[in-house]
Amino acid sequence: MGELIYEGKAKQLYTTAEEGILRVAYKDDATALNGERREVFAGKGIRNNEITSLIFRYLAENGVKSHFVKQLSETEQLVREVEIIPLEVVVRNVLAGSLAKRLGRSEGEVIETPIVEFYYKDDALGDPFINDDHVLFLGAASAVEIETLKQEARKIGDVLTELFSKANITLVDFKLEFGRTKDGAILLSDEISPDTCRLWDKTTNEKLDKDVFRRNIGNLITVYDEVLTRLEEVTKHV
Amino acid sequence: MGELIYEGKAKQLYTTAEEGILRVAYKDDATALNGERREVFAGKGIRNNEITSLIFRYLAENGVKSHFVKQLSETEQLVREVEIIPLEVVVRNVLAGSLAKRLGRSEGEVIETPIVEFYYKDDALGDPFINDDHVLFLGAASAVEIETLKQEARKIGDVLTELFSKANITLVDFKLEFGRTKDGAILLSDEISPDTCRLWDKTTNEKLDKDVFRRNIGNLITVYDEVLTRLEEVTKHV
Repeated sequence: MGELIYEGKAKQLYTTAEEGILRVAYKDDATALNGERREVFAGKGIRNNEITSLIFRYLAENGVKSHFVKQLSETEQLVREVEIIPLEVVVRNVLAGSLAKRLGRSEGEVIETPIVEFYYKDDALGDPFINDDHVLFLGAASAVEIETLKQEARKIGDVLTELFSKANITLVDFKLEFGRTKDGAILLSDEISPDTCRLWDKTTNEKLDKDVFRRNIGNLITVYDEVLTRLEEVTKHV
Repeated sequence: MGELIYEGKAKQLYTTAEEGILRVAYKDDATALNGERREVFAGKGIRNNEITSLIFRYLAENGVKSHFVKQLSETEQLVREVEIIPLEVVVRNVLAGSLAKRLGRSEGEVIETPIVEFYYKDDALGDPFINDDHVLFLGAASAVEIETLKQEARKIGDVLTELFSKANITLVDFKLEFGRTKDGAILLSDEISPDTCRLWDKTTNEKLDKDVFRRNIGNLITVYDEVLTRLEEVTKHV
């Protein structure tokens, strides 16, 4: 079954018989407050694996490469091995959460040209928000890579905003991670799910993401199911 | 004597008989903790006016334009009227203060390629650190202006690092403000003084700036005098 080489908050990573290919197993854990709060939701791993697999397939059809190779089982994927770039790349279409507070603006305000932000992946530091010069100083990415990350993030934002819109969901903001392959190419990695996106129902503004856990305002599994069902509905005709 | 049109923490701004020219009067107030702590140091206004005037003259000789027209008196300057861009542009040559903590690195670490940062000037929000996309979203500056601000900040950094070095002072970091003239040109504005720079003696690492007030570790006037004397010494032969 391969050797466990990494365990994060929501996923485990195993080697496979094939060089350069890893197996991801999605866990049922939900965490908030930078990992301080943790709870287990039976079936969450299945939903996030199904949603991420569906989205990575959809992105591939729309010209966005990722580490995704194929879905293996309800909770597992095969992915290409990459060296993760230690940045969370956040794209914001609508003002929400901490940024609305920081800028003293209202949650829900539409951002005409999406905002792209970098956060330095470091749990001990609380994943601080940084700018391009900090990225270079920290050696997290090169100047060329920074431009690639921004361009890819914007392109992914365009594709996913349209996809979610068809499912009557506003893609408010989302977090991406990228990795480097052995030949230096940059590939979208990690996952794209209601754990890593802020999703609001377009009609009711009801939250359809991990905020229902963070804010204790609903049943996480019901909500994740709703997102999966809607995405399946709008992609099955494609 | 002109009409008072603006009063900040450290300076007052008056109209003059000449259209487009203002008079700045430096105050003796020192503030810390975003204005929460305030104290008056007799003679501080004189030092900051003398130091800023000397530095703006030196920058002009080295090809950097500013709003500075001329020194009027011990505490006053004439400056060109500009519309202030609501950004604090910070340049960092050496890691210190809040950024060292944010990045989990040691104070005193040399930054090979200086880091340029933008902070949104808004007292109520605590002048939040922002990136280029936030600047555009807030309408604080255009994309072209952002590039100009960065280029000017780096050029000013190069000139001033060398000037302070001759005075046996390390220019650790400093804050700049810029304004727009009526014809859309961008001019360095505000002041450059131990209130707005972090300055360390090159030999002893002794602090020669407002940190002596912020951290209660010395006599502010003695320290500002030391900076002024050293800068006069190294510029009078020019």
